Amino acid sequence: MTLDKARQLDAADPLREMRDRFVLPEGIIYLDGNSLGALPKVTSAHLREIVERQWGADLITSWNRHGWIDWPERIAGKLSPLLGAKPNELLIADSTTVCLFKLLSAAVAGRPGRSTILTQRGNFPTDLYAAEGLIRLHPNLVLKTVGADELPEALGGDVAVLFLTHVDYRSGMRHDMAALNAAAHSVGALTLWDLSHSTGAVELDLNGSGCDLAVGCGYKYLNGGPGAPAFLYVAERLQASLDSPISGWMGHANPFDFGPSFVPADDIRRFLTGTPSILSLAALECGLDTFSGVSCEWIERKAEGLTSFFVEAVETLCGDEVVLASPRDPGLRGSHVVFAHAQGYAVMQALIARGIIGDFRPPNLMRFGFAPLYNSYEDAWLAAEAISQIIHDHSWDRPQFLGRKRVT
Amino acid sequence: MTLDKARQLDAADPLREMRDRFVLPEGIIYLDGNSLGALPKVTSAHLREIVERQWGADLITSWNRHGWIDWPERIAGKLSPLLGAKPNELLIADSTTVCLFKLLSAAVAGRPGRSTILTQRGNFPTDLYAAEGLIRLHPNLVLKTVGADELPEALGGDVAVLFLTHVDYRSGMRHDMAALNAAAHSVGALTLWDLSHSTGAVELDLNGSGCDLAVGCGYKYLNGGPGAPAFLYVAERLQASLDSPISGWMGHANPFDFGPSFVPADDIRRFLTGTPSILSLAALECGLDTFSGVSCEWIERKAEGLTSFFVEAVETLCGDEVVLASPRDPGLRGSHVVFAHAQGYAVMQALIARGIIGDFRPPNLMRFGFAPLYNSYEDAWLAAEAISQIIHDHSWDRPQFLGRKRVT
Repeated sequence: MTLDKARQLDAADPLREMRDRFVLPEGIIYLDGNSLGALPKVTSAHLREIVERQWGADLITSWNRHGWIDWPERIAGKLSPLLGAKPNELLIADSTTVCLFKLLSAAVAGRPGRSTILTQRGNFPTDLYAAEGLIRLHPNLVLKTVGADELPEALGGDVAVLFLTHVDYRSGMRHDMAALNAAAHSVGALTLWDLSHSTGAVELDLNGSGCDLAVGCGYKYLNGGPGAPAFLYVAERLQASLDSPISGWMGHANPFDFGPSFVPADDIRRFLTGTPSILSLAALECGLDTFSGVSCEWIERKAEGLTSFFVEAVETLCGDEVVLASPRDPGLRGSHVVFAHAQGYAVMQALIARGIIGDFRPPNLMRFGFAPLYNSYEDAWLAAEAISQIIHDHSWDRPQFLGRKRVT
Repeated sequence: MTLDKARQLDAADPLREMRDRFVLPEGIIYLDGNSLGALPKVTSAHLREIVERQWGADLITSWNRHGWIDWPERIAGKLSPLLGAKPNELLIADSTTVCLFKLLSAAVAGRPGRSTILTQRGNFPTDLYAAEGLIRLHPNLVLKTVGADELPEALGGDVAVLFLTHVDYRSGMRHDMAALNAAAHSVGALTLWDLSHSTGAVELDLNGSGCDLAVGCGYKYLNGGPGAPAFLYVAERLQASLDSPISGWMGHANPFDFGPSFVPADDIRRFLTGTPSILSLAALECGLDTFSGVSCEWIERKAEGLTSFFVEAVETLCGDEVVLASPRDPGLRGSHVVFAHAQGYAVMQALIARGIIGDFRPPNLMRFGFAPLYNSYEDAWLAAEAISQIIHDHSWDRPQFLGRKRVT
């Protein structure tokens, strides 16, 4: 394994030109696109157009003239090939956690008489918090958390919804979505998937795998910008029978009638609530457009290639000093990789000081995200080399860093 | 009343220079800032800076380096003088309807044993929808709607929360907030106010008037851009005892510990949910900065002056052809005025065709919003003159317009 080998792999990469779609600061190797995706080159000019021409000049008339009113559906439609879902099953709305709350509540109400929300121990914290919040409203509900291996046997007739993160934010472990959907359906439960660390990073087939409900994040691999709105998916077959608990005028069958009572739209729009944030949607659209012409299969292969190459390079260069804390089988992980090291926090700080941006997850995990569109094999090689140098020089051996940690 | 008189009033207006803070398209008289506020001059360049330098160059490090993590509180603090509230009682978050859902749910949970949400017939539809959604989760709750005059007598010991819009979106009618807060408190109820058509348009004193909870819109008089995030207010004395039903990691006492259970922050941050939209917050900050150096009292006086002048001008020029459908006493209305005319929809279309932008509310109401920062007495005069011409020429007398109506 050498830098030359990495460059050969880059030269043969069918996605190699996609990197040109992004602003990547010089001197930085950015391996945190699973936390905040890089800036697409077109975003700034597009926002300027929306702000100056649409908002500034056309003012209120833009809701019709520029079709703002349909953006939550129209822009979500661009996710369709990445998710393996029909455009009319998708919306851009709110934040990931608010979307989770909506769909979890809808799922529970859609399975009356069942009292269990089943999830995995160690699920992403905000997902667990959303479930806890819902349970405070419905004291008869129970949140049951079990280990990943125990999920199939924990699926009983009392489970209303199996609620999982597809790719774990820490380990990168990827669930078998089709198998778990089938297991849940066999006991009459619905499934709700958090796709925040999956979308734009691995191949997804929500329809083909029998997925009921899903949400995901717009600001990670989708490159929608910091705090971009989230997306939600409701299988077409369920849309007529499920309701959002947060009724709002944008989800009304006839929002412009201003009627006194809520009548949900008969399609995916019933899961909208308030007026959509047009500026955030505009930036997210640029993020989604970075996937234009890119197949989901290519993304999956590139993720597999980059992460496998990185794992091999780190293990070759660092030996026993670091321990892989992600699944070794690339089919069982997403597009990020975690290595444990006793001084993981300090090593990560030393990497960041050299311009190699990953992040740290307690207690001792160094996390490296590989965005299939803009990360290269050369990035992976140089990062592995730097880790090895820092570890062998003991240049992490400095007073412990303090201070606030970074956003996931 | 003449154009000269209007110009004299403009010359004497202490806020006359505030108009320079906005991009106002030539040839347009914009009287719909109560629907979508005008674009501040600084917004586009500020967004570019945030996008290119903070997101693009500094990437994930911006959450600390540029303090993004604190923006929901920091930017909300700029609302403090407009609301008469302490900065630590305010947050920017979500959409208005989601904020309403959070605070309505918190209020109901904060008054156990009480089952009534009391509101006004004709309250803004999305407010009613949010309450209906909450009631579907709590079937023991009742939404009681009465006429504005009947509110005091409807306040009984079963009322958990009095839930009102301060300035009515249609008529512009303004409630006496202090009197209703006192009446609600006398029976042990909490109050929740929707300030969407009040903030930046009339004088508010949430602390002085004894207000418990409030929400408001960022994209109307606050000029935060289409679909800007909302704000919420929770009186300091209530923060420790009320909880948001939508728990999320941003509301956690220690969000970066990624702990398995939700522990609410001990301050206003407990009402946050997901990752804040930084681009939307950046635009809203520019909107709030248009109020820099402007006192709430000046805003109130300008709103009163503009609307009163407009009412007088329309009535003088149009006679009996139009009927004022807003309160005549400026102390009882907000900063918009509604006139009824049998052909109101067609007259409004004819006005818009001339570049005078107001909006129409069924069945026959023409609505004109006056933004104290950028509308002038001359705007009011020219609009009144145009209405008079259209009505007297019968130039509204064309085949009825069809098509989708505009966003509130």
